[in-house]
Amino acid sequence: MTDPTAIVLLSGGLDSVTTLAIARAAGRTCYALSFRYGQRHEHELVLARRLATTLGAARHLVVDIDLAQFGGSALTANIDVPKDRPIESMSGDIPITYVPARNTVFLSYALAFAEVTGAEEIYLGVNAVDYSGYPDCRPEFIDAFEKMANLATKAAVEGRHLSIQAPLLLLTKAEIITRGLELGVDYGSTSTCYDPDAAGAACGRCDACALRLRAFADLGLRDPAPYQGAAS
Amino acid sequence: MTDPTAIVLLSGGLDSVTTLAIARAAGRTCYALSFRYGQRHEHELVLARRLATTLGAARHLVVDIDLAQFGGSALTANIDVPKDRPIESMSGDIPITYVPARNTVFLSYALAFAEVTGAEEIYLGVNAVDYSGYPDCRPEFIDAFEKMANLATKAAVEGRHLSIQAPLLLLTKAEIITRGLELGVDYGSTSTCYDPDAAGAACGRCDACALRLRAFADLGLRDPAPYQGAAS
Repeated sequence: MTDPTAIVLLSGGLDSVTTLAIARAAGRTCYALSFRYGQRHEHELVLARRLATTLGAARHLVVDIDLAQFGGSALTANIDVPKDRPIESMSGDIPITYVPARNTVFLSYALAFAEVTGAEEIYLGVNAVDYSGYPDCRPEFIDAFEKMANLATKAAVEGRHLSIQAPLLLLTKAEIITRGLELGVDYGSTSTCYDPDAAGAACGRCDACALRLRAFADLGLRDPAPYQGAAS
Repeated sequence: MTDPTAIVLLSGGLDSVTTLAIARAAGRTCYALSFRYGQRHEHELVLARRLATTLGAARHLVVDIDLAQFGGSALTANIDVPKDRPIESMSGDIPITYVPARNTVFLSYALAFAEVTGAEEIYLGVNAVDYSGYPDCRPEFIDAFEKMANLATKAAVEGRHLSIQAPLLLLTKAEIITRGLELGVDYGSTSTCYDPDAAGAACGRCDACALRLRAFADLGLRDPAPYQGAAS
């Protein structure tokens, strides 16, 4: 019997990389799926490609999608990424870096890929604890997507169930890192930053960097990723 | 007060064009959205552009999407389109022309576009009567997508409801054409064919052509669209 197949959404960031490691540790044959969606930095995709290989993904596909022509987000338009915000001020708000319907679009592609490949699971690294502001990271959104997906496809009509796995959903950032380190993830090769420099070094000051740095600090660890201005 | 805004999925085929006419007649400001998704014929998009203008859409966007790299359908891969099948043999089966998760992907983009533009409705021309084989044309799929969409977005969190309008869902093809003719739709400029020639003339023999031709015949009308080998 062959291993069950899972589609894994892989951005190259800390969360999605840990998710891939968890899917691999659960014995899944993993098809990693990344998107080029008008990010201001290609560096993420270079890291995603490298990490897919390192973590033993069976395939890695990069799909071009065109959310930028809709506008409306700091990640795809020319808006300044907020810096040096206190972590306490982040919760509740929907971040300026929110991309309209992004997880819905990403999961829809994953659904198409799952149907074609016969995968029975989609793994994604959403997390409802640290970033409570993103509507499409909430458990009720994931549940509703799964219900819809099981009505959408030929596979579903034929009785094959598709499940959405979000293993990080209720973990803190520190718990995610702890789990990843147990599974041998090299966090030096991941980037979570909203505003890295041309060489891919993280800014250390955007919301994503602040949360990540605090989590490593809480664990008494040094974040092995490269930061701008650091001597590493 | 300005007219309410609706996103209208527009392929250039008979159903989606009638849907746009219905949305316009209902007083909506319409943003038409078409997709270039590895169709074998660009002709559809030329018609969509022309019909969007004729029917008074305020904007028309064509988004490139990349379902072809997943494979798995006659519309995007090099599989022969079935011809000359009796209409009675079509129902029940999922057609070979089924594209994995297509309506889910299309609606996800429409959702992103709705959020950015503040649209409160998405219109799409799915129809559960003539093509009962498509899983993502069923009422329960549309309902599930709407529920998911209302959990997915910043707009939803802020209390703005999005509704999915599928005005053709329970109409027969003949009823759709009757409604469109009342609204002044020029069906000579629409193409429903799965296998048109280079000039855009319909084959007259695929499942879509067979259903369309029978509907016009049932109404005692001649289909004004160009067909291959016809002297029109």
